[in-house]
Amino acid sequence: MTAFTLVASSDPDILSDFVVPGNNAPVDGNFFTYTGFRGVLYHLPPDFTATEASVTEFRALDGQSVSLDVLQFPGGSVNPPHTRPRASGLLIVVTGQLEVGFIDTKNVLYNQTLVAGDMFIFPKGLVHYQYNPFSVPAIAIAAFGSASPGTVSVPKTVFTTGIDDNILAKAFKTDAATIENIKAGFTEP
Amino acid sequence: MTAFTLVASSDPDILSDFVVPGNNAPVDGNFFTYTGFRGVLYHLPPDFTATEASVTEFRALDGQSVSLDVLQFPGGSVNPPHTRPRASGLLIVVTGQLEVGFIDTKNVLYNQTLVAGDMFIFPKGLVHYQYNPFSVPAIAIAAFGSASPGTVSVPKTVFTTGIDDNILAKAFKTDAATIENIKAGFTEP
Amino acid sequence: MTAFTLVASSDPDILSDFVVPGNNAPVDGNFFTYTGFRGVLYHLPPDFTATEASVTEFRALDGQSVSLDVLQFPGGSVNPPHTRPRASGLLIVVTGQLEVGFIDTKNVLYNQTLVAGDMFIFPKGLVHYQYNPFSVPAIAIAAFGSASPGTVSVPKTVFTTGIDDNILAKAFKTDAATIENIKAGFTEP
Amino acid sequence: MTAFTLVASSDPDILSDFVVPGNNAPVDGNFFTYTGFRGVLYHLPPDFTATEASVTEFRALDGQSVSLDVLQFPGGSVNPPHTRPRASGLLIVVTGQLEVGFIDTKNVLYNQTLVAGDMFIFPKGLVHYQYNPFSVPAIAIAAFGSASPGTVSVPKTVFTTGIDDNILAKAFKTDAATIENIKAGFTEP
Amino acid sequence: MTAFTLVASSDPDILSDFVVPGNNAPVDGNFFTYTGFRGVLYHLPPDFTATEASVTEFRALDGQSVSLDVLQFPGGSVNPPHTRPRASGLLIVVTGQLEVGFIDTKNVLYNQTLVAGDMFIFPKGLVHYQYNPFSVPAIAIAAFGSASPGTVSVPKTVFTTGIDDNILAKAFKTDAATIENIKAGFTEP
Amino acid sequence: MTAFTLVASSDPDILSDFVVPGNNAPVDGNFFTYTGFRGVLYHLPPDFTATEASVTEFRALDGQSVSLDVLQFPGGSVNPPHTRPRASGLLIVVTGQLEVGFIDTKNVLYNQTLVAGDMFIFPKGLVHYQYNPFSVPAIAIAAFGSASPGTVSVPKTVFTTGIDDNILAKAFKTDAATIENIKAGFTEP
Repeated sequence: MTAFTLVASSDPDILSDFVVPGNNAPVDGNFFTYTGFRGVLYHLPPDFTATEASVTEFRALDGQSVSLDVLQFPGGSVNPPHTRPRASGLLIVVTGQLEVGFIDTKNVLYNQTLVAGDMFIFPKGLVHYQYNPFSVPAIAIAAFGSASPGTVSVPKTVFTTGIDDNILAKAFKTDAATIENIKAGFTEP
Repeated sequence: MTAFTLVASSDPDILSDFVVPGNNAPVDGNFFTYTGFRGVLYHLPPDFTATEASVTEFRALDGQSVSLDVLQFPGGSVNPPHTRPRASGLLIVVTGQLEVGFIDTKNVLYNQTLVAGDMFIFPKGLVHYQYNPFSVPAIAIAAFGSASPGTVSVPKTVFTTGIDDNILAKAFKTDAATIENIKAGFTEP
Repeated sequence: MTAFTLVASSDPDILSDFVVPGNNAPVDGNFFTYTGFRGVLYHLPPDFTATEASVTEFRALDGQSVSLDVLQFPGGSVNPPHTRPRASGLLIVVTGQLEVGFIDTKNVLYNQTLVAGDMFIFPKGLVHYQYNPFSVPAIAIAAFGSASPGTVSVPKTVFTTGIDDNILAKAFKTDAATIENIKAGFTEP
Repeated sequence: MTAFTLVASSDPDILSDFVVPGNNAPVDGNFFTYTGFRGVLYHLPPDFTATEASVTEFRALDGQSVSLDVLQFPGGSVNPPHTRPRASGLLIVVTGQLEVGFIDTKNVLYNQTLVAGDMFIFPKGLVHYQYNPFSVPAIAIAAFGSASPGTVSVPKTVFTTGIDDNILAKAFKTDAATIENIKAGFTEP
Repeated sequence: MTAFTLVASSDPDILSDFVVPGNNAPVDGNFFTYTGFRGVLYHLPPDFTATEASVTEFRALDGQSVSLDVLQFPGGSVNPPHTRPRASGLLIVVTGQLEVGFIDTKNVLYNQTLVAGDMFIFPKGLVHYQYNPFSVPAIAIAAFGSASPGTVSVPKTVFTTGIDDNILAKAFKTDAATIENIKAGFTEP
Repeated sequence: MTAFTLVASSDPDILSDFVVPGNNAPVDGNFFTYTGFRGVLYHLPPDFTATEASVTEFRALDGQSVSLDVLQFPGGSVNPPHTRPRASGLLIVVTGQLEVGFIDTKNVLYNQTLVAGDMFIFPKGLVHYQYNPFSVPAIAIAAFGSASPGTVSVPKTVFTTGIDDNILAKAFKTDAATIENIKAGFTEP
């Protein structure tokens, strides 16, 4: 009687307390525990690193509308401009300091320098970035109101996916040589 | 008793048939009519032009979760890479032809050449573009599942809002001179 | 552990960029393209014709909360009173002129005459109609904030589905003969 | 900074436990109590009567996504075909018996005879009716998953709101005289 | 292409009129009918009894965002403090009288004495109870804006599930002996 | 024309990038920054302390569907059993160790011992607790998929709000003296 009942995971309220994948086998406390950050939270990587714990990494988040990332910024490193298509991001600086900013749909930049303990909200779907201008490393936690916020990195999306040089040159009001130049930066070893 | 009851317009289901702004003065059929496209639909502008009819322009859309844009592409013009933070876009080509594409959160480009009558779906929050590579003008209509989809133009957001050159140079793996060069393209008369 | 995990397609936000039916086989730009309107948009049928592109016809709309219909009105033709149970409808007249109207839950009729380029919003779940009173054909596009708006045609729903004559006679404050008379109009060849 | 912040009541989750109208004056248990059904539940009216307790009658329902109607059917009375634009209806027969039915968007009629204690679900936005074919009165309670489900009565919407006879005659495949005849039934004293 | 498409039942709008479990076999009016209350509504049990008709018992409620419970209170019986994690509850007293109350997130108690025909709203997720202080039995119907509201009984949740005595003693500002004492009340035959 | 347009804050998608309270005065980066945790994150209080940053404390969270709490556990302290009526809670241990648990609607306890870096998800509306059984202090951050998750503390809700001893004695299967005893623990200086 129903024309269309394909399966679609959705973020809103579920009809059960939680969702167990597959055959609904019995679960215990381990199912609701994520240990993947144990080796991450206080380790310092050489470059900016975002470690995600979305529903892909932590299945128990399915239907719970929340997830977390741990962000690590060695001195001078940048989390490039990006958007989250499915959630706002609420960032709290755990150690160090960060320069952060986002641009709204009226093309206004809102930026700030954050110290440890400070929080900043990046509204849903808007381009934003973080930057550690100091030599001391910074660690931050970003919380999302979705189990699968997604990430669209502006530089990678635009310059590493094969969009025609001609289209990009017109869009960025420059020439194909400059576009090729920028593209090259992402392919060098 | 309630701690927080500030006003917030929201896109989901409303508790009334429609929302009348202000003092709920009586309305008639004109309130539900938008005539702002009369001079637009078949007029050909010199450059790419998007004319929006969101809730800002057409108040009766408040609470109805739908809106439309009319897009006009003179030969060779581009609608630069952009995202819609609050809706997917469903584009139908009314006349002419268009090259279109979007990039998903795995950095895969999906593109297509469309002829009159063809439709293409740009999923919510993803970067996408349209390009008319021919000399014949093209006209398209884009429909959104929100009364206020919003637009984030990648080139303008990144290069015209005052983000520090140093941050952009690191993000785009280039030097400050190239960043300044691109920025200049948007400020020239 | 979960009592109930049956499959249910839902219109709200999805946890992925898009939904691929079945085995999640790789897709390309064709998956996001709908060509079913190519032969429709500028063809003139003998009677009023609505051609739908909902998630049933265009699978890539699953999870994107938007869809379109193309409506063609030869001179004098009517799109009978109907409701859309799952979406408001935003109609734009592409060519010709239309008389349109809807009735709200207080039994107030809102109507209008539209010319090419005009838009009209039909709020969700309310009875509405369109009529081309002229001899020149009219073409319109209707956009919906759901991938599956559904259609409930009032005449067909009430008079062609086997509801008892006695119930209908009481409901429409007439006699069974009149009900039979109207029913007959829908079964004649 | 926000372009559009008009007030819109919405049915989804609220940010507070409950919503107090106006100046958020202190409330007590009376605010959460509705006594309007005291004189209704066991009183027998001469004709079919639906008494609604939606957010309009019972302000504390704002933001709670639920409401109730009490329906009273003297012998032989009909609740005419109607839709609820904003909610499914779950009907429970408290006393007596009822014939009920709804028609889905594929024009299939689903009907049933219910006895006291039986429940029937009328899906959101679909046309449905109830009929008491017996001489014993019937009382039912209808629950809705919205604080403001709304009602669209098909006969009143179509035949008492001033839609042009010509449009209705074409839509119902009959003549203007029959349309006038039915309209007259609703205006007679 | 989609990283995550596991099955998740959700309460919001569905893309079809209704959801048929399993193989989508044809259904008729019986599928939309629930007869499980026939033997319940006017039967008097010896103790307080709540009979639920959620989506678990009545499959046709899937996707319809509504459900009902029948509550029976012999004289002196109590429905202990509990919460509904997924819906507000709207209670109507069918026969008898009830003392009811809920506590909001500011720790304010709102209570009331209800007579037949009265309704009371228990906001979503808040602790509430009902009590019949008289010898005459009371019957009530509770409606929910979810097909699966769920129940969290405070006494059973806290004192019958194996939470460590030490944790409970600290939480309830008492000693382990008192905790053991209360626990014993739930295990005695 | 609309019967009901009272103001209701809601958590779902907004029609603007963000919501500015009151007169929509211009805002800058400070509006999106919360500094209230500066003195909290690394300070050790004598007792368990939860510091909330919901929309009440941080206005820019309105419409963003996310918020954070900082939780500080001196050795041996307990966060008593409680529920969050409007959000799931995702807890990450920043320093120290915690015993945590929740009980689902089938009365099953899921518990775990967490070390620094571990995360645990507490599904929406379910009773849960945290306990630091060691002498070393523990600090945790809890993220919520709502700007206003709310807190219902089970001990305070049940034993400090004036619910009648008779009702509580029946509910907890004990006598009024034991109820009075527990109540006394919360009123002693």
